[in-house]
Amino acid sequence: MTDRFTVRYRIAAADEVDARARARAIALEQTVEIPEEVVPPGFIAEEIVGRIEALQPAGSAFEATISYSDDCFGDDFVQALNVIFGNSSIKEGIRVTRIGLSQGLAAICRGPRYGLAGLRDVTGVAAGPLLMSATKPVGLSTSQLALMASRFAEGGMDLVKDDHGLVDQRFAPWTERVRACVEAVGEGNARSGGRCIFVPNLTGSANRVRERALAAQEMGVGAVMVGPSLIGYDVVRELAADPDFRLPIISHPTFGGANVITPTTGFAHGVFFGTLQRLMGVDAVVYPNFGGRFGFSVGECREIVDASAAPLGGLKPIVVAPGGGMTLERVPEMRAVYGDDVMYLMGGALLKAGDGLADACRRLRAAVGR
Amino acid sequence: MTDRFTVRYRIAAADEVDARARARAIALEQTVEIPEEVVPPGFIAEEIVGRIEALQPAGSAFEATISYSDDCFGDDFVQALNVIFGNSSIKEGIRVTRIGLSQGLAAICRGPRYGLAGLRDVTGVAAGPLLMSATKPVGLSTSQLALMASRFAEGGMDLVKDDHGLVDQRFAPWTERVRACVEAVGEGNARSGGRCIFVPNLTGSANRVRERALAAQEMGVGAVMVGPSLIGYDVVRELAADPDFRLPIISHPTFGGANVITPTTGFAHGVFFGTLQRLMGVDAVVYPNFGGRFGFSVGECREIVDASAAPLGGLKPIVVAPGGGMTLERVPEMRAVYGDDVMYLMGGALLKAGDGLADACRRLRAAVGR
Repeated sequence: MTDRFTVRYRIAAADEVDARARARAIALEQTVEIPEEVVPPGFIAEEIVGRIEALQPAGSAFEATISYSDDCFGDDFVQALNVIFGNSSIKEGIRVTRIGLSQGLAAICRGPRYGLAGLRDVTGVAAGPLLMSATKPVGLSTSQLALMASRFAEGGMDLVKDDHGLVDQRFAPWTERVRACVEAVGEGNARSGGRCIFVPNLTGSANRVRERALAAQEMGVGAVMVGPSLIGYDVVRELAADPDFRLPIISHPTFGGANVITPTTGFAHGVFFGTLQRLMGVDAVVYPNFGGRFGFSVGECREIVDASAAPLGGLKPIVVAPGGGMTLERVPEMRAVYGDDVMYLMGGALLKAGDGLADACRRLRAAVGR
Repeated sequence: MTDRFTVRYRIAAADEVDARARARAIALEQTVEIPEEVVPPGFIAEEIVGRIEALQPAGSAFEATISYSDDCFGDDFVQALNVIFGNSSIKEGIRVTRIGLSQGLAAICRGPRYGLAGLRDVTGVAAGPLLMSATKPVGLSTSQLALMASRFAEGGMDLVKDDHGLVDQRFAPWTERVRACVEAVGEGNARSGGRCIFVPNLTGSANRVRERALAAQEMGVGAVMVGPSLIGYDVVRELAADPDFRLPIISHPTFGGANVITPTTGFAHGVFFGTLQRLMGVDAVVYPNFGGRFGFSVGECREIVDASAAPLGGLKPIVVAPGGGMTLERVPEMRAVYGDDVMYLMGGALLKAGDGLADACRRLRAAVGR
């Protein structure tokens, strides 16, 4: 690795001359942010201003790879994100399609502690897909949610998470709920002989996220869930690198949709749900599955799968966790796309089973060949 | 105010029946996130699930106003954002076009401490537009940046901010740079008789942002700048409510572009650059001006102006700070749109004056009638 990291952008442009002009505008915008004619010569013009390393047609657009000096961001992950896409995120027809690491970026992004292999160890699932469900909805009492958690565990789910809408509401306060759900999952495990783990949702300020992460660890949860687009990318990166915190981190896509759903702006699905998550140190990433109530295509989901495991400066591959409108009937179709290295997140479809929840989980488990 | 807050969504739909179905899907997605048929009756169905308060055609789409119970988010601003647009941000053809406060949301959003009137007091500009510029580019030394800051002050600018690319780079370390720029602005003021303030850029982790905010305050800066889309919305809200911190906060749009630039997704310009900033407690908001190198229209900029001052649960109006590709020649056109209650951010165009920087600032000041 060198001391320059690279960002590939897909750029809408009329022709190659236009594309090169737009790429040059990005190289300036993301670094010096001043007109070309007032860029100081020497070090700034040669090292700080982004360098167009490659430019080529890509379908109806162009792809430009631009390299940036590690000197642009110091030791600051937030500032690295700023260099990657800061002001250019506000221009139309520019989408980040790849990020290549440098020494400096690798030094501040220690990456996932667990990743796919580590999560298999934690859950004891040596082979085949992992299974996750969620306690919900908001408005249920602690005891109702805990009962649900115990049934998920009894039915053989590997992870039970809070719904991402559960925080610290008065009908199920955070501490009481986490304690009750950990205990309930333990009871379910005792009945099933399984090793299901409970995964609480963490939100709020950076300090509250950290406090709750440590409190949850103390209470015996097996992992935690965060929404990086809500709580902040660096809050997640810090948690993943926190010496006092030792559990896997699961990422939820809430509030981040605008970053991916317009194909000509934001980030490619693989970059946002794969690369960026690994840079933050996330171990598993939840995203909307194809064919559900969200609009992701099979191709976009495959991009996430690829980016979750592609070489990235030695960072561990992470677990993809498609969810959203998944049903038992769709398992064969999903297995064809995802194979074994996947975590299925199924919530609503299982809850339809009511008191037969544990049985529904067993059917799901059988359907995925476990 | 009641204990339900409202969110208005613009929804792409074939007809009113389709629009109502999509609105109902949002009301479920943002609260219980389970299929309609398994929503528990009683409190959850009646209070927790979002209520469609209004639905009407709006051009080629529909607008639905949905109310949510304060019980959905507890005391958690991040969770309130989750309820406003969490998972629905990942669905196509849904855009947030208005947010109406409730008692609970108002209680956790104390709003701007200064706003427009407060920033006029701080800068001593009783009438007419405020003027802000930026020291740049990244790569200059501390002394070069400080010299630039002194000239801006000498020329009569009211605020001089760090470029948002300046953090803690080795050629201009944060503490050294802030101290030098505060001093340089003071020297410029001594020559001009003005009251220009220096505004450092804060990035990094939540704790670093707070530490630097307090350190900068100690060093005599007049305000601070943050990029909420980068550092996290709640990091900004906490800083604005921090009892140890007492300065105005200026918001920079970096990294947030995807939230606004596709007209059918994300947030309306007024909501993102007006309402949300006021909820966070920002005092002035930088955004790309119309007609510059970014693509905002005059209408979108007017939306921001309106939302920066519209009634919002008693929160103070804030200062709009258009920037990006602004020139002296465009001042009359900008005055026609913005009038007097505006802060013009002009950087690159002034820097083209080189050693004549202070004179260029004086010409700008005269052009805006100050």
